[in-house]
Amino acid sequence: MKVEVITVGGEILCGLIADSNFAYLSRELSAIGAEVCWHATVRDNVADLVEASRTALARADLVIVTGGLGSTPDDITRKAMARVLSKELVLNDRVLDHLKKRMEQVGREFPPVMESQALIPRGAAIFFNPVGSAPAFAATSGNVRVWVLPGVPAELEAIAHAHLVPEVEGGLGDTRTASALLRTIGLPETVIAQKIGDLTASGCSISYLPKQCGVDVRLSSKGSDRGDARANIEACSREVKARLGDAVYCVGSATLEQVVHGIILAKGIKVAVAESCTGGMLSFMLMSEPGSSAYFERGVVAYSDESKRTILDVPSATLETFGAVSRQAAEAMAHGVRVGSRVGLGVSTTGIAGPDGERPGKPVGLVYIGLATPERTHSREVKLLGARHQVIYRACCLALDMIRKELGLTGPAPPGSVAP
Amino acid sequence: MKVEVITVGGEILCGLIADSNFAYLSRELSAIGAEVCWHATVRDNVADLVEASRTALARADLVIVTGGLGSTPDDITRKAMARVLSKELVLNDRVLDHLKKRMEQVGREFPPVMESQALIPRGAAIFFNPVGSAPAFAATSGNVRVWVLPGVPAELEAIAHAHLVPEVEGGLGDTRTASALLRTIGLPETVIAQKIGDLTASGCSISYLPKQCGVDVRLSSKGSDRGDARANIEACSREVKARLGDAVYCVGSATLEQVVHGIILAKGIKVAVAESCTGGMLSFMLMSEPGSSAYFERGVVAYSDESKRTILDVPSATLETFGAVSRQAAEAMAHGVRVGSRVGLGVSTTGIAGPDGERPGKPVGLVYIGLATPERTHSREVKLLGARHQVIYRACCLALDMIRKELGLTGPAPPGSVAP
Repeated sequence: MKVEVITVGGEILCGLIADSNFAYLSRELSAIGAEVCWHATVRDNVADLVEASRTALARADLVIVTGGLGSTPDDITRKAMARVLSKELVLNDRVLDHLKKRMEQVGREFPPVMESQALIPRGAAIFFNPVGSAPAFAATSGNVRVWVLPGVPAELEAIAHAHLVPEVEGGLGDTRTASALLRTIGLPETVIAQKIGDLTASGCSISYLPKQCGVDVRLSSKGSDRGDARANIEACSREVKARLGDAVYCVGSATLEQVVHGIILAKGIKVAVAESCTGGMLSFMLMSEPGSSAYFERGVVAYSDESKRTILDVPSATLETFGAVSRQAAEAMAHGVRVGSRVGLGVSTTGIAGPDGERPGKPVGLVYIGLATPERTHSREVKLLGARHQVIYRACCLALDMIRKELGLTGPAPPGSVAP
Repeated sequence: MKVEVITVGGEILCGLIADSNFAYLSRELSAIGAEVCWHATVRDNVADLVEASRTALARADLVIVTGGLGSTPDDITRKAMARVLSKELVLNDRVLDHLKKRMEQVGREFPPVMESQALIPRGAAIFFNPVGSAPAFAATSGNVRVWVLPGVPAELEAIAHAHLVPEVEGGLGDTRTASALLRTIGLPETVIAQKIGDLTASGCSISYLPKQCGVDVRLSSKGSDRGDARANIEACSREVKARLGDAVYCVGSATLEQVVHGIILAKGIKVAVAESCTGGMLSFMLMSEPGSSAYFERGVVAYSDESKRTILDVPSATLETFGAVSRQAAEAMAHGVRVGSRVGLGVSTTGIAGPDGERPGKPVGLVYIGLATPERTHSREVKLLGARHQVIYRACCLALDMIRKELGLTGPAPPGSVAP
C-alpha cells in the first residue's frame, strides 16, 4: 500500500515549528508495513492543497491530509478537500453537539466561529476527537482512501492510533515485507558496515542511521509471504547481534534510557549521580521514565570545586593535584556520591563541554565518566566532538552505556522492544 | 521569491529520522524574506526525484534538493539531477583532489567508491564541503535556480550558511515584507488573541504558535517597500509588548533559557538549584548556555526525603507535617540550597510529574516552585497538564520565568534577539 501524506501548514514552511505529525505518521505506518512514498507540505491555501491532493490521488493508495481544521480564516482544509472529493460541505449536527458540549464542560460560551468545525464533506465517515474539538473524517475517491486529520499533534495521534492505523493494518492483509531495528552504541558506522555489510547477500537490505549517541541499523526483507520475510529478518537480526556483540543495546525502538531503566529496575539497585559538565542531564535521563523513583536516590550537579568538596567529599588534594577534570576526580565523585547516599551505584561525569574552558592538556570535549559500586570504582576517558549540547548528550549516553555494561546487559524488555 | 525544497530520504519517509534540514532551510530562508511555498519528500529513487524536481521547476523560482549525495548505491541525487538539468555527469578533478586529501588527513585509504562524489553535472557551480566530503552544486534551468546540498545536517548548514543564504538574500533585492517574533509565557492563546487580535486592522497579520512553554506571536507586514513594512512591524511590536506586558520574554528567536541566562549574568548573581520532580532538567536548562559556570554554583536532585534532609537541610517536621510535595517543602528546599551553597538565589521544584504518584489532594501535575534570596523566600503553586515529560518541562519553564520576574525583566539582549 503506497501512502502520501500532505501537511497543511504555513508555519511549518516558515520554519516556525517542526512537523511532528508527519514524523509520527511515517513511523507508525512504516511499522505496520505500509510504504510512505511521498510527503508534501503546502501553504494554508485552497488552490495549493487542491493541487497537491490531486497529484497524490493520482499515485497513492492512501492519502492523509493533516492540519488546517481549526476555526480561523487560515483553516482551509475542509473547503479544499470538499472540492477534491467533489462533495459539498454539510453542517453535521452530531459534530455540532459534540463541540457545544466540550465548551460547556470548561464553562465557556460556544463561539459561533467554531461552527465551521462541524462542516464535513457529504458522505464522509466522521471520527470524533477525544482530546480536542475538530473531528477527523475519511472518504473514498475512486480506489483511493482519503483521511483528513486535525493538526494538533495530541489530537492527530489519538485519532490515528484509534482509527487510522487499525484501518490501514486491516487493509494490508498478508504483507510481504518485514523489518527490524537494532540500536548500537560505541562503534562507528564504517566499522559496523565492515562487520555486517555482507549480510545483504542473504536478502536483507541494511540501512545505517547515525544518531547522536550511536548508530541504528535497520534491516528489511521482502519474502514470498509475511512468514518468509519475518523468518529471514529474524535470522539476519541474530547474526547482526552475534557480530556486533554488546554494542547492540536494543532490538526495537526503545531508547537507551528505557533499556538502562529496565536493567536497573531488574537488578533492584539504587543509584546516585554526581555531575559536573553534564549539568543535570544525566540525572534527568535516569529519571525520565515513570517509576524511576524506585531507584533514583539523588543527583548532585557540582559545578564548583567547593561543592565537589562539601557535598561529594572529593579530597582537596585530588582537585589540587589532578584538577577537577581528571580520572581521579571522576572516581572520587562517583565514590563520594555513592557512599554519601548509601546506594549500590554511583555515577559521575566531569569534563569540558565547551565552547570555552580548554586548558593545557585538557581540550574541549574531554570527559571522564566514573562508576562506583561497593566492589570497585573505575572510570573511562572519552574525547567527544561537537557543540556544547552534543558533548553533553554524548557523555550522558556513554555514562548510561557504562551502567548497562556494569550491571549486565539484560533487563526485562521495555515495551515495544527486545533487549539483546 | 518562491522556494521549493525537496528532501531525498527513505529514512525520513519511514519515520526513522526527522528532517532537520528542511526545518533549518525554511527558518533561514523565511528569516531573510524568501517564501518557502512547497516542500516535498521523496524516496531514494531516480524516477521519483526527477518527477518531484520537474513539478518544482514549473512553479518555483528556487529549487533546493537535499540529500542522496553519498557514495552508497542508494545515493541517487546526482544521477537524477543530471537528468533534470539535461547535463551529463563529469568527474571533477578539483573535487576528487579534495576528497583524497580529506582521507589522507585522517590517515585512511581513499575508497574507490567515493569517486562518485566527484561527479558533477557539467557546468554546475561547485561549493566545497568544509565539514564533510560531498560538495554542493548549483545550476540554472530556464529562470529557475537549482541548488543541490548534502544531507548530513552539519554539512548542509555549513554550505547553506556560507553560500546559499547569501545568494538568496542578494537576489531578493528590496523585499517588501517584514516580520517579528514575540515570545510569551503565562497567557493562554485565547487571552492573547483577545488582547491583540484587533491589531490586524493596522495591516499586520498575526499568527499564534502555541509551544510547550508559552505562545509565540508572529507578526508580519507587507508594505510598499522594505522600510515601510519594517516601520509598521515595529509599531505593531511595541503595541503588542505594551498590551501583553511582562508575559513577553523576548522579541526575537532567543529561548527562555538564553534570556534568563543573560539576565543572571547581567545581575552578577550566583544561583543554586534544588529539584525533586524535575529531576535535573532545571539545572541543565540553567547551565545549557556557554558561560553559565560564572553563576551556576550547584544543583541537587533530591528525590528521597533523606536527601532533602541531609543535603538541603529541609526540617523533618516540614516533610512530616506538609509532605514533600508542598509549598513549605519547596520554600525550605530553595532556602536550604541557597544557604548551603552561599549564593544569592536558590530555586526549587517539588511536585508530581506522573503518570503515577497521585496522593489525596495532590494530583498528577501539581508542582510547587520555590525561590529564595537573602531578602525573601516565596513559592508558586501550579497545576500542569500533559505527560510526564511535558509536566517536567513546563515546570522548568515556569521556574525560569519566576527567576526572570524576580531579577527584573531586562538583561543584555542575547544574540539575534531584543529583550523586552
